[in-house]
Amino acid sequence: MTLPKGEKNCITDVNGVQVGHVTLYKHLNDKETICTGVTAILPHTENLFRKKVFAASSVINGFGKTAGLVQIEELGVLESPIMLTNTLSVGAVMQGALTYMLDETEEIGDTTGTINVVVGECNDGYLNSIRLQAIKPEHAIAAIQNATNKKSAEGAVGAGTGMQCLGYKGGIGTSSRVIAAEKENYTLGALVVSNFGRREQALFAADSKENPDTPDGSIMMILATDAPFTDRQLKRLAKRCAIGLGRTGSTIDNGSGDIAIAFSTAAKIDHHSSEVTSSFTMIRDDHPIMNQFFQAVAEVIEEAVYRSLQQAETTIGRGGRKLEKAPI
Amino acid sequence: MTLPKGEKNCITDVNGVQVGHVTLYKHLNDKETICTGVTAILPHTENLFRKKVFAASSVINGFGKTAGLVQIEELGVLESPIMLTNTLSVGAVMQGALTYMLDETEEIGDTTGTINVVVGECNDGYLNSIRLQAIKPEHAIAAIQNATNKKSAEGAVGAGTGMQCLGYKGGIGTSSRVIAAEKENYTLGALVVSNFGRREQALFAADSKENPDTPDGSIMMILATDAPFTDRQLKRLAKRCAIGLGRTGSTIDNGSGDIAIAFSTAAKIDHHSSEVTSSFTMIRDDHPIMNQFFQAVAEVIEEAVYRSLQQAETTIGRGGRKLEKAPI
Amino acid sequence: MTLPKGEKNCITDVNGVQVGHVTLYKHLNDKETICTGVTAILPHTENLFRKKVFAASSVINGFGKTAGLVQIEELGVLESPIMLTNTLSVGAVMQGALTYMLDETEEIGDTTGTINVVVGECNDGYLNSIRLQAIKPEHAIAAIQNATNKKSAEGAVGAGTGMQCLGYKGGIGTSSRVIAAEKENYTLGALVVSNFGRREQALFAADSKENPDTPDGSIMMILATDAPFTDRQLKRLAKRCAIGLGRTGSTIDNGSGDIAIAFSTAAKIDHHSSEVTSSFTMIRDDHPIMNQFFQAVAEVIEEAVYRSLQQAETTIGRGGRKLEKAPI
Amino acid sequence: MTLPKGEKNCITDVNGVQVGHVTLYKHLNDKETICTGVTAILPHTENLFRKKVFAASSVINGFGKTAGLVQIEELGVLESPIMLTNTLSVGAVMQGALTYMLDETEEIGDTTGTINVVVGECNDGYLNSIRLQAIKPEHAIAAIQNATNKKSAEGAVGAGTGMQCLGYKGGIGTSSRVIAAEKENYTLGALVVSNFGRREQALFAADSKENPDTPDGSIMMILATDAPFTDRQLKRLAKRCAIGLGRTGSTIDNGSGDIAIAFSTAAKIDHHSSEVTSSFTMIRDDHPIMNQFFQAVAEVIEEAVYRSLQQAETTIGRGGRKLEKAPI
Repeated sequence: MTLPKGEKNCITDVNGVQVGHVTLYKHLNDKETICTGVTAILPHTENLFRKKVFAASSVINGFGKTAGLVQIEELGVLESPIMLTNTLSVGAVMQGALTYMLDETEEIGDTTGTINVVVGECNDGYLNSIRLQAIKPEHAIAAIQNATNKKSAEGAVGAGTGMQCLGYKGGIGTSSRVIAAEKENYTLGALVVSNFGRREQALFAADSKENPDTPDGSIMMILATDAPFTDRQLKRLAKRCAIGLGRTGSTIDNGSGDIAIAFSTAAKIDHHSSEVTSSFTMIRDDHPIMNQFFQAVAEVIEEAVYRSLQQAETTIGRGGRKLEKAPI
Repeated sequence: MTLPKGEKNCITDVNGVQVGHVTLYKHLNDKETICTGVTAILPHTENLFRKKVFAASSVINGFGKTAGLVQIEELGVLESPIMLTNTLSVGAVMQGALTYMLDETEEIGDTTGTINVVVGECNDGYLNSIRLQAIKPEHAIAAIQNATNKKSAEGAVGAGTGMQCLGYKGGIGTSSRVIAAEKENYTLGALVVSNFGRREQALFAADSKENPDTPDGSIMMILATDAPFTDRQLKRLAKRCAIGLGRTGSTIDNGSGDIAIAFSTAAKIDHHSSEVTSSFTMIRDDHPIMNQFFQAVAEVIEEAVYRSLQQAETTIGRGGRKLEKAPI
Repeated sequence: MTLPKGEKNCITDVNGVQVGHVTLYKHLNDKETICTGVTAILPHTENLFRKKVFAASSVINGFGKTAGLVQIEELGVLESPIMLTNTLSVGAVMQGALTYMLDETEEIGDTTGTINVVVGECNDGYLNSIRLQAIKPEHAIAAIQNATNKKSAEGAVGAGTGMQCLGYKGGIGTSSRVIAAEKENYTLGALVVSNFGRREQALFAADSKENPDTPDGSIMMILATDAPFTDRQLKRLAKRCAIGLGRTGSTIDNGSGDIAIAFSTAAKIDHHSSEVTSSFTMIRDDHPIMNQFFQAVAEVIEEAVYRSLQQAETTIGRGGRKLEKAPI
Repeated sequence: MTLPKGEKNCITDVNGVQVGHVTLYKHLNDKETICTGVTAILPHTENLFRKKVFAASSVINGFGKTAGLVQIEELGVLESPIMLTNTLSVGAVMQGALTYMLDETEEIGDTTGTINVVVGECNDGYLNSIRLQAIKPEHAIAAIQNATNKKSAEGAVGAGTGMQCLGYKGGIGTSSRVIAAEKENYTLGALVVSNFGRREQALFAADSKENPDTPDGSIMMILATDAPFTDRQLKRLAKRCAIGLGRTGSTIDNGSGDIAIAFSTAAKIDHHSSEVTSSFTMIRDDHPIMNQFFQAVAEVIEEAVYRSLQQAETTIGRGGRKLEKAPI
């Protein structure tokens, strides 16, 4: 008994959310292939620093280099796009997204404080010549500029370009669900960068054993919703990503940096205000609809992982390494 | 491709681990039925305060009242039996286990410090007249005294007497796996008190919809191993319990206090020593065997939940409420 | 430049907050003396389960046995009195407070879920014959029934009866500050059970070296405010208790379970509601008043510790051990 | 009764620890001045990726952008230099340190996994034209190459070039203590980037009130020791930094990202090994020496903050803003 899907079955079903990709693929020589990219997720269409959104993260396995989580934990808000890329490009992407936000927001670092840029990553070094650090700050800026509310591309695109999943070609996957409340419908969407697991773990085809020698990998899982949740509640949603992930076959390998970030677009919190207090609305934790959201998280993560496999084509990377399209 | 089971397929396959139960079942009148109990898990056969073991917990959903986790988090050791009971009997069971340990250990609270007693719980109030607080400290003492290394009873026994799971009769379940290292075999075992979920969530029979009006429930998941892990690593194992749990159908409902506690029997840490330092051994996180342990956690938790259902008989509780044996 | 004190310089300056004590002192024989007690802090005068308050904790040093923090962390609310006692009486006090709340609230464990009772503790075993477990559930009930909004007694009273602080007689101390906002005044109050440190650490008299052989001890620090803060913000306040504590001389010894719990009385959250959402108000983190609250936390904790010393008289405990009144 | 200082009263008293700085100061025009830098701390002289050290962090106030803490929390080890810089240069410095490590370590991202680079920051935007992003990756490389085990420069140098503290010119400060065990001496050292507080908070001169309009700021606190501690214990040390910080006057303002990172040089953990297990030694938490380490943390942090003030000269920054040398 699954919940109904959103119109696009995409994280952009959450009103205002936009996704943009930059994809780099270039065969350099027998040894080196650039096979990587950047994906940007924007919670809404206004200036994200001036209008923050409630957010939280869950570090399911912290063998990862995601930047920006410390401040989200303390203040419960997101004030930048969520950027996704390869592990060794976190610095470049941070610089790019920062430059974009500085250009948009002249008060940062001048008349007000600084900005917390969130960058998640997976290691695409099996296919991608990751040591070459092909991603430059301008790729991050372009990914942000490319962002639209259309259905996101999936598979070997953006940050997913070089990723591997369950021994097959992985990448970007997305999914959404609609939760009906009394007076209105809420939407919950996910976008993942799948990069974890071996073939013998895959629950869709668990008998397969000839795995390529891929490393443990990682998964980044981004949740967006228009339902009014606080940071504490968004952490509860983010934690449930482990359920959907486990249902695909993952047992969260040692080297897999499995990290979930969740945000709500329901409230826009001014960076500055002369008011002492502000008001906020939240779904009651004890309302039965809460369990539907938890179910929705498991569903969108499981489906987004499967879609990342279904939409990815066989890809050849550095040194002629090949990851095949999954038989799913 | 599952891992081989231990000899008894029980947490007591981990050498030294003992389990004891006390079961209370009494129909008092048309309204009230006592249907509850206590389960004790002892990591080894020596004095647990004088010989501590490395331990850690993972609070997967903190809608629960487990006591004793604060000190485990700080010091990374367990120094008492792990006691399991119903939610409103945490105080009585703490007192009982404390009295047992004081009797065994004359220096506690006299010439040395105090003791941290760990008590986990689930709410059996659907069947059990939980407000009557039928559990007394002596029941906790008896559960400890009953502990043996034999295969543990399962189903509606001990702390599992009144529990419900996935809309059916739940309770105690246990399972174990053997992980082969180069020179020796390690064992990982689990014991759960299953008390979560609704029939429509059950992945073994997901079409069933007529659920009794059971509340959200909870699950306590205890992991034991003889492999040498530190508290940091045991937390990594404990976190993976969410994977096995999710594979049974749970999406971790709001009211479900889902808590995992893991300990290793490999090292016994003296309460007091005149030495400045101690030395220990740990499994290397990057060794491939680590992923086998993570897989084992998912397997033993999933199987322990299913065994808790399979071994539980239809049970009648307060006000004539009935929980049926699961069709599994 | 300190902030102005509240009228009573007491945690009960926060409107609605009540404090009650039960003190046990009895010389039994040459070896044994009962020298302990219970303190109850009630956030408001209504049923605490039906009308919850936002709350959070900060475990500054987790060598302690405080019960009830897991659920506060998950749900961000307090639904019971905060009970304080000696380490080996957490179970008895939990039972007593539970019984009180069950009597007041017939739906708990019957037509609705269970209740999370919060019990903090320090080890008074230097003076108190703690192994005798003199505290019974009825003492906890009496402490709750004794609670009033008058200025709390301080020193060797309630949970502070047997405590030691900085090598002298410690116990209960309380303090409050008023923070002026634009339209209204907010109050922040603290109550501590001081039980930490050695004479050579005391910053009020740091040259003293002849310390009695007291153990590392602990401190419980309770913050109350009528300002509208969420659980996330209350955790920020609770963390700052370390600052006030450090200014008295503590460097948070290994065995000192230093735990802070903070709650706000500004919102009363219904246990149950048919509404999907609730709305609340919160102080803006970036408003300058926030830093005044942080300053106030440091001030009330430092002063509450000193008051616990000033108000405590020289006390004789088990085996003739004596803790002297501090020269402060 | 303070502990004895190390020979250089510097974090480099811990054998093997090296510190390097790059300082940028350039008056560009009436509006803009570059006044910033990079500091690198290297735990030992070998390849840091191949020989990791136990490490932990404590986020005392998470209004900060430090990168690399997620993996330290999960795995308990540090595998890169600790880099310190201004808030908007975290990306550039991450890239620089990454490039340095890639050059030193050909297997990263090729035959083995990636690397976790740790970059801490404070906001020097009061004096520094931080929006100009003057720090480039090569400055990070140069800071690493500059690292020596000599006494570190202090005050307005490296990452401290543009920082402000307690309303005066802050920056780099360092300090160390020697703890005598039975057979050997251990050393604990700290290096801070001080950038917090207002004049009226300063406990060395608390009556001063004419504060420049500096923002809330931050402090980075790095602890190094040669004593054998695990990550869990290093977190305990890191937490105590709040005590030393509070004694200088800080009450941890809202905008102050106060973050501590601690590492031990006692064990060098191979990145890869064919062994299943490894051995480690740890100081016993219950040994009295533990409390001396906690005292040492408070002392070195307090002293390092004061030294950062004493060693900093009056500095003029962007728009003619001036921070005076502290009267200390």
